[in-house]
Amino acid sequence: MRESNPKRGRNSNGTDVSALDREIIRFLQEDGRRPYTQIATALGLSEAAIRARVNRLVGSGILQVVGVADPTKLGYQQALVGVRCEPGRRTEVAEALARLPEVDYVVLTAGRYDVLIETVVEDNDGLLEFLDVRLPSVGGIRETEAFPYLRLVKQTYQFGTR
Amino acid sequence: MRESNPKRGRNSNGTDVSALDREIIRFLQEDGRRPYTQIATALGLSEAAIRARVNRLVGSGILQVVGVADPTKLGYQQALVGVRCEPGRRTEVAEALARLPEVDYVVLTAGRYDVLIETVVEDNDGLLEFLDVRLPSVGGIRETEAFPYLRLVKQTYQFGTR
Amino acid sequence: MRESNPKRGRNSNGTDVSALDREIIRFLQEDGRRPYTQIATALGLSEAAIRARVNRLVGSGILQVVGVADPTKLGYQQALVGVRCEPGRRTEVAEALARLPEVDYVVLTAGRYDVLIETVVEDNDGLLEFLDVRLPSVGGIRETEAFPYLRLVKQTYQFGTR
Amino acid sequence: MRESNPKRGRNSNGTDVSALDREIIRFLQEDGRRPYTQIATALGLSEAAIRARVNRLVGSGILQVVGVADPTKLGYQQALVGVRCEPGRRTEVAEALARLPEVDYVVLTAGRYDVLIETVVEDNDGLLEFLDVRLPSVGGIRETEAFPYLRLVKQTYQFGTR
Amino acid sequence: MRESNPKRGRNSNGTDVSALDREIIRFLQEDGRRPYTQIATALGLSEAAIRARVNRLVGSGILQVVGVADPTKLGYQQALVGVRCEPGRRTEVAEALARLPEVDYVVLTAGRYDVLIETVVEDNDGLLEFLDVRLPSVGGIRETEAFPYLRLVKQTYQFGTR
Amino acid sequence: MRESNPKRGRNSNGTDVSALDREIIRFLQEDGRRPYTQIATALGLSEAAIRARVNRLVGSGILQVVGVADPTKLGYQQALVGVRCEPGRRTEVAEALARLPEVDYVVLTAGRYDVLIETVVEDNDGLLEFLDVRLPSVGGIRETEAFPYLRLVKQTYQFGTR
Amino acid sequence: MRESNPKRGRNSNGTDVSALDREIIRFLQEDGRRPYTQIATALGLSEAAIRARVNRLVGSGILQVVGVADPTKLGYQQALVGVRCEPGRRTEVAEALARLPEVDYVVLTAGRYDVLIETVVEDNDGLLEFLDVRLPSVGGIRETEAFPYLRLVKQTYQFGTR
Amino acid sequence: MRESNPKRGRNSNGTDVSALDREIIRFLQEDGRRPYTQIATALGLSEAAIRARVNRLVGSGILQVVGVADPTKLGYQQALVGVRCEPGRRTEVAEALARLPEVDYVVLTAGRYDVLIETVVEDNDGLLEFLDVRLPSVGGIRETEAFPYLRLVKQTYQFGTR
Repeated sequence: MRESNPKRGRNSNGTDVSALDREIIRFLQEDGRRPYTQIATALGLSEAAIRARVNRLVGSGILQVVGVADPTKLGYQQALVGVRCEPGRRTEVAEALARLPEVDYVVLTAGRYDVLIETVVEDNDGLLEFLDVRLPSVGGIRETEAFPYLRLVKQTYQFGTR
Repeated sequence: MRESNPKRGRNSNGTDVSALDREIIRFLQEDGRRPYTQIATALGLSEAAIRARVNRLVGSGILQVVGVADPTKLGYQQALVGVRCEPGRRTEVAEALARLPEVDYVVLTAGRYDVLIETVVEDNDGLLEFLDVRLPSVGGIRETEAFPYLRLVKQTYQFGTR
Repeated sequence: MRESNPKRGRNSNGTDVSALDREIIRFLQEDGRRPYTQIATALGLSEAAIRARVNRLVGSGILQVVGVADPTKLGYQQALVGVRCEPGRRTEVAEALARLPEVDYVVLTAGRYDVLIETVVEDNDGLLEFLDVRLPSVGGIRETEAFPYLRLVKQTYQFGTR
Repeated sequence: MRESNPKRGRNSNGTDVSALDREIIRFLQEDGRRPYTQIATALGLSEAAIRARVNRLVGSGILQVVGVADPTKLGYQQALVGVRCEPGRRTEVAEALARLPEVDYVVLTAGRYDVLIETVVEDNDGLLEFLDVRLPSVGGIRETEAFPYLRLVKQTYQFGTR
Repeated sequence: MRESNPKRGRNSNGTDVSALDREIIRFLQEDGRRPYTQIATALGLSEAAIRARVNRLVGSGILQVVGVADPTKLGYQQALVGVRCEPGRRTEVAEALARLPEVDYVVLTAGRYDVLIETVVEDNDGLLEFLDVRLPSVGGIRETEAFPYLRLVKQTYQFGTR
Repeated sequence: MRESNPKRGRNSNGTDVSALDREIIRFLQEDGRRPYTQIATALGLSEAAIRARVNRLVGSGILQVVGVADPTKLGYQQALVGVRCEPGRRTEVAEALARLPEVDYVVLTAGRYDVLIETVVEDNDGLLEFLDVRLPSVGGIRETEAFPYLRLVKQTYQFGTR
Repeated sequence: MRESNPKRGRNSNGTDVSALDREIIRFLQEDGRRPYTQIATALGLSEAAIRARVNRLVGSGILQVVGVADPTKLGYQQALVGVRCEPGRRTEVAEALARLPEVDYVVLTAGRYDVLIETVVEDNDGLLEFLDVRLPSVGGIRETEAFPYLRLVKQTYQFGTR
Repeated sequence: MRESNPKRGRNSNGTDVSALDREIIRFLQEDGRRPYTQIATALGLSEAAIRARVNRLVGSGILQVVGVADPTKLGYQQALVGVRCEPGRRTEVAEALARLPEVDYVVLTAGRYDVLIETVVEDNDGLLEFLDVRLPSVGGIRETEAFPYLRLVKQTYQFGTR
């Protein structure tokens, strides 16, 4: 098993993730509660080695093992919000938005919007409150455009290790 | 502990999730590998009861317990793609896009786009291949606009049970 | 040779509404259940004359006397939908949309959209069903953009007779 | 006849409207001047009970019984105006616009515009005066886009109680 | 109580132009140098009467009799420029733009732009100078979008009197 | 007086217009009915020479001498319409639109629209008829966006000969 | 001098360009006619080695050594054209556009446009001819938007080897 | 061989480039390292004359003879960025952007954007740094929209002398 993967080296961080780490991630993407002993057996390693590697991946922010609920099925309203920032403030805005608890996803993008965020709120009143009070509490925003979700069709986490 | 939560009843599915289920979800959102015995003790239930409820939540698609990797740190390129469909085909398009393995997120929305998807690809060549070959393999698409991710700032799953 | 040009009046129907009719309309805009005797006294006419004029205004579509409910307070989701049509089909599309029971308002406009409609649905699933099934059942539509209502702030009918 | 309607409970206010109230609303949506005695007979209640319920619905803003005139047939020009606000001012702007007498409809929305309003004016000069003087008298507006009405095709109030 | 409502005429000025004036305008739209004696004979009036009416029409700004050159054939570059103004300044901006000699057409509009102007310049350098120096010398402009003309296909003045 | 003007030679047609022609055009731009004798005196030529040159300019489409009425003051509604065409049909569309009598201006442009036209109609009904029946009678149009005129602020023809 | 440059390895082709090649490229970016003997001396290699490496770089399409003229100074009109394609045809369209001699730059992009091209034409007539005849001769194009150049401010080739 | 070329005279600078200069440019567009002796023979001139003319063309900014590398093949990320400026600052912004070393192309345009620039950066992090730090270091920018390149399909310099 190759421990280096030069073809994937687009991001410097990426080069720190070995092929073995990727195998472990793949097992956990399928089932986050898979016992480490099972993964250890499959990869020919000790459970301690698996645990140590998972801890390192989690500690460095490469991996989370979490319960992911479907907000729609819990009765919540979600929306994607495209954000355009004042010149020179997009990273600052993104980081401030990331500190809002009702924002679960923040990404800096190229194109029509500078930052894309996903928010989870109770209902339309909550979305209005978010758009008119919470989101503008962050300075440096020029304009926003919200896309309320009507139905969540797919949410998977099995990528990147095929 | 109330088992019903009438204030959250926006979606009929939502009413099937009890306050107790929400507590369990909250524990797993914080740490997907938290031992059921720990959750059982905290909520005053047996481990078997917790396990049964988690299994029901997972079986009904309300919850996944999974390893979530940061694609950027694995050296991948991600993009959000806004999709506009031919009239009357948006649900069909969303479901077909959900079947593509390189698409990890599909949501039907109101506004400028009909469907929003997230894709994870190797690099710019992979994004071009996705936009020009894979995505159009789905019929009923009228136009698309891709937003390549420059940096992922926040990705959390702790919502909906506060 | 005529020296006057009555055709320049903006709406031919407008000229059929007398100042007296406008006074009656104003009374009913304030309170649709105002007794005709009260209006008759105020305008120095008989109740029968008021009744006859109201009937004529209602019969010609100039006036409706109706209960207007606030959909938000009844727990419904409303949305404005901007519609762009295939060339030469905007009037036909507008008339077909007007026949859908879940559409309560249809207007032909100039600008970015050809037709603007308002719809009242049960919830997000109802809005998706409307956008993906009901609305496209009307032929000649090229693209649509929905604006879900977050809060209704004003809905009044006292205009046009000041 | 059930007095509760849990399936419609999207807005907390909505839950205060009983199925019986909805029946009364439906009668008045068809004809705002229908005598209460007629409604009372149909629903097996006293006229006083109907009157009391109507008064409560009107008092709480759930229902208006009004004369609704067709502005086009009265010779007026109408327009929808999409309004984009400065960050954090959309509710304030909506409420200020609602205080302008030439504005008959104000709604807070998600999407390309923050607030949608409908205005009724005398003619093109009146629309220009509205857009350039009246509307900007409200602070916090960033940009506006007017859609002049060319023809009103449908205006109905029979919804929400089917 | 007046039963007629002359204010509904769309433009008050429009009512001041008699059918006879319209006939005279029509003759001059066809040929601006047509001798008044010829028009007088055709309409059964004296040359003096025609001359007086033309003078009144010109004096009140209803009519110009002018040489209209095709800028393209004279070797000039033309462009339409859509202008968006700061709130409440569109009339002021339009009037200031009208005072620039290189602007030959200014109109206040509804829709995506607040003001549309046409400019005639020497070449691309002149257009850049106009967009970057002359046009912004007018305060209250928020953004502009220029549409350089590639070919003038029709320019006629025979309307409004058919 | 130079007869050639190399600095203006952007269009080949432009080179056929001498500096003397430009002087004559300038006189007529100021007043289309200026007697040729007056122009002849000012330029040191015979009236016959002026008449011959004007006839040549008019015959080659470089100049029109016409009565230009203000449509607004005649009680008409005008609108600019931006037209986008099917690929490869913009010149054909422009020429077909130029044949419609209610279209008084047609220009091929670069940018968001392929063709810009100006139309003069009676009122809002006429504009709707134009947009939905007359304009689409021309094949090859993909989409249109109308900008109704609210007020004409400047319309001058004194350019190109300074 | 390192011959490998792992930090630059985003594209697999990129890894074939050694640090030495990059040095040579840098010399030629500054002056395309710099004698190979001069470069050889500076880098401590033989002229033959430099020549061989340049030939390999040119042969593999990594480098061109060319005269680059400023089209504006040669009296030409340039424009960028944003192209949107029918689904699944963007690569095919880009390659077909690349075969047109009046197109000097073709790039596949993410965002509002699928393909961006630069064209060099004689004048406005040439641009219209290009947009209406040449460009649509390529099948699979849905819409285009041209940005005529008003002034070229910078055109340099010194990048990528710093 | 004609030394003047009146048909190309759109820009005053253009008239300074003789037909002979154009022939020389054409030879160098094909191969920037073509020996001057070869060009001299082909055009019937001395090598010194060719060298003098090339020097003059280079000195006046009409021609560069340079190595042009393909940034994609060197492993770089490129993007076009559309820039909209504050009123009256587009030339100033363009000139300031031209001074940034990571910007290799700057052009002032008409249309949706005021300035178009091309940038060459290391990777997505570099693009974010450019968009959020370097580009806004230039004052007078109102908004930007980046189009990351997915694949460079054509880059040629053989134009303008056919």
